[in-house]
Amino acid sequence: MKLASFTYQGRVAYGVVHGDQYLVPAADFLNRFPDLASVLRAGALADLEAAVRSSGTKVQLDAVQALPVIPAPGKIFCVGLNYKTHVAEMKRADADYPAIFVRFADSLIAAGDTMLRPSFSERFDYEGELAIVIGKGGRHIAQADAFDHIAGYACFNDGSVRDWQRHTHQWTPGKNFPGTGAFGPYMVTADEVGDVNALTLQTRLNGEVVQKASLSDLIFTIPVVIEYISRFTPLSPGDVIATGTPGGVGDKRQPPLYMKDGDVVEVEITGLGILRNPVGTAA
Amino acid sequence: MKLASFTYQGRVAYGVVHGDQYLVPAADFLNRFPDLASVLRAGALADLEAAVRSSGTKVQLDAVQALPVIPAPGKIFCVGLNYKTHVAEMKRADADYPAIFVRFADSLIAAGDTMLRPSFSERFDYEGELAIVIGKGGRHIAQADAFDHIAGYACFNDGSVRDWQRHTHQWTPGKNFPGTGAFGPYMVTADEVGDVNALTLQTRLNGEVVQKASLSDLIFTIPVVIEYISRFTPLSPGDVIATGTPGGVGDKRQPPLYMKDGDVVEVEITGLGILRNPVGTAA
Repeated sequence: MKLASFTYQGRVAYGVVHGDQYLVPAADFLNRFPDLASVLRAGALADLEAAVRSSGTKVQLDAVQALPVIPAPGKIFCVGLNYKTHVAEMKRADADYPAIFVRFADSLIAAGDTMLRPSFSERFDYEGELAIVIGKGGRHIAQADAFDHIAGYACFNDGSVRDWQRHTHQWTPGKNFPGTGAFGPYMVTADEVGDVNALTLQTRLNGEVVQKASLSDLIFTIPVVIEYISRFTPLSPGDVIATGTPGGVGDKRQPPLYMKDGDVVEVEITGLGILRNPVGTAA
Repeated sequence: MKLASFTYQGRVAYGVVHGDQYLVPAADFLNRFPDLASVLRAGALADLEAAVRSSGTKVQLDAVQALPVIPAPGKIFCVGLNYKTHVAEMKRADADYPAIFVRFADSLIAAGDTMLRPSFSERFDYEGELAIVIGKGGRHIAQADAFDHIAGYACFNDGSVRDWQRHTHQWTPGKNFPGTGAFGPYMVTADEVGDVNALTLQTRLNGEVVQKASLSDLIFTIPVVIEYISRFTPLSPGDVIATGTPGGVGDKRQPPLYMKDGDVVEVEITGLGILRNPVGTAA
């Protein structure tokens, strides 16, 4: 299934992507499970599928206001420096552990929303990434069990305000401006994705390919990352892990290539659709 | 007022500290404002004071199960390297900006709860700190207005798993183990605290003073920190900022002094009470 979140009839809702329509579950289902994370918490993906098949309402994709795939994840983890090509361009040494930093949920936006450069920075950069959505929570998850904890996958653009990211060694500020974390257009459930290593990721700025990688190039694989994170903090359904960006970021190009007003940035991953966002400036 | 959170009659509640008792507001007040953060969001501290005066129930401090001052803050910021004595022992250069990292709410514990060393680390360290509780939210808060956004202050112990903190340059893992962020025993409203620079902080391990500093020694003052954070992310009522720890951490002593089972660690700040926690090991 492809699952998306959006505002529908004045409330947060979600549905199954079906061609150019969403199949939205009936009100009783939405009342029981008010958002996609609550469906995951209840382990009710099969119920959702049955509910939209029996009594779903068809809604045109463009008739609703898109939301981030999970509108308000409890925890959003980002992995830094997780492709050799990006480690090389950042002139970093190889690491023994994944670098983990945190995004707040209010930095997220949906596909189609404007990515917002803060007016006081000229260094707003893209980072195309594969995001994992946790389906089954846990602590101390072994690598061998990691895939059992994944509900699905989606495109992510970890928009980065480079000067604020580098104010100190801690990257929090440059990774948390409102309107910088694009997450969509939908998640694809793990059963439909199959072998993650077969996926390829591409980031385009105004149609030009600026990042291109195979997910098999991840330095710290998805099972390693899930095991590592779950050793220091519990994972819960709806939590999100952005797995890192490959080489090609704008900040390390000669000359640098930052995002500016009127640009259009896209992240495309095999089978996961295209996360397309215009770029603007925060008031 | 001194305000504390606790479990009372099977639910999250809060009250005003009055000698060896809590004055707990009546059920209608608790229904309207189910936790301390919701009182702050509503700007209802004066209403709380009136409510407990007119119809509060007296409850012995030790008759309830303490909770962190704010049980589940939306955002918890920690400032690193914010006292010259600590910067020196960490052998860090002076910085132009505060180093900001993030704690998840599920790492918090209350006064009296056991601080939990993960069984697979021998390097569990204390960090006594002053915590700010945000009362009025905002973005782009000017230094001159910063104190208007503070509801109150409390003691904080930013328990740190040093090996996990240093796995990479990003400190997230070592700062987020469950049972490592002690926050209490209560917050004191800003009107009663007065000049923050007049406060002194002391951390004691098994009665021995291991950290001692004046809050006037902060490198990045409270207004500077609030202005800086609110430039990259909105602050909301109930958000918490742990302002950093002074020199004397166990990890930089010769020989190192880590916390171990059976220890008792205390953080005391002038007028803010004593945050006392036994130390144990997570199963």
